Amino acid sequence: MKLGRSGCPINLAVEAIGDPWSLIVLRDIMFGDQRHYRELLAKSDEGIASNILADRLKRLVDTGLLTATSDPAHKQRLIYSLTEAAIQLVPVLVHLAAWGRAHRPATPELSVRAEMLEQGGPELWALLMDELRGRHLGVPCPARSILGELQAAYEARRTAGVV
Amino acid sequence: MKLGRSGCPINLAVEAIGDPWSLIVLRDIMFGDQRHYRELLAKSDEGIASNILADRLKRLVDTGLLTATSDPAHKQRLIYSLTEAAIQLVPVLVHLAAWGRAHRPATPELSVRAEMLEQGGPELWALLMDELRGRHLGVPCPARSILGELQAAYEARRTAGVV
Repeated sequence: MKLGRSGCPINLAVEAIGDPWSLIVLRDIMFGDQRHYRELLAKSDEGIASNILADRLKRLVDTGLLTATSDPAHKQRLIYSLTEAAIQLVPVLVHLAAWGRAHRPATPELSVRAEMLEQGGPELWALLMDELRGRHLGVPCPARSILGELQAAYEARRTAGVV
Repeated sequence: MKLGRSGCPINLAVEAIGDPWSLIVLRDIMFGDQRHYRELLAKSDEGIASNILADRLKRLVDTGLLTATSDPAHKQRLIYSLTEAAIQLVPVLVHLAAWGRAHRPATPELSVRAEMLEQGGPELWALLMDELRGRHLGVPCPARSILGELQAAYEARRTAGVV
């Protein structure tokens, strides 16, 4: 995509994440805490192709949404982390999820986290962003884990759904 | 893009508008009140290509985000209108614009509307959505025109910027 098509803020945001996969990859890093290429590929619910994942990760690093650092435990592997700019996409993702829940046939287990985030509002999103800063930017983690609460709600809905 | 890759609400939203042009076209219809193919092409700040515009318009109609009706004044021409689903993308666009303003080099005149929408919050977005329902869905228009206020602010910033 040609960058700098215009100086409109909506256009500039679309240039950053307006493609079929960038937000999916960011979602998995943000909510799934998947930080390595291998797990982003293997655990992709949407079955992202390996070359597309590699390309998206590189592009997101190049455009300032991710950083890639060597994994101290595995020298050949990279750990991907969100930048502050990516963390500030939380409200965009929350509203996209709310729209998907309202207008598309979203499955119940995958919707419960969207529901909690919608209902929690800007206060909850701010807590989530602080937690993400702890996990990705190396600042102290807050005591309350929103990601933990979202995961617990997902697990509860998933097991409740088993007939 | 293959649809129904998963039942995740974020994924389903990305499937609807996750490409380089759909949100740009929706923005021009929503905020620019550009309702015909010809003006969407001619007035495109980002220089959308004719074949891409035609393809996006068709896809947005097929996926329930736009309707296309014959223009009573010009039988060969179609008027594109937002559906309720597209109108409910307002919060997504507001937050995308806020992100673009915060993290990308957005130009001042094009940012003033984004600023007003951010500051106005959910109450302002609700008023805007009611106005869009009036303009696109045929329901009575509210007295207060948010689009008019946004346009006035844009004009004021634009003329103020002339040295």
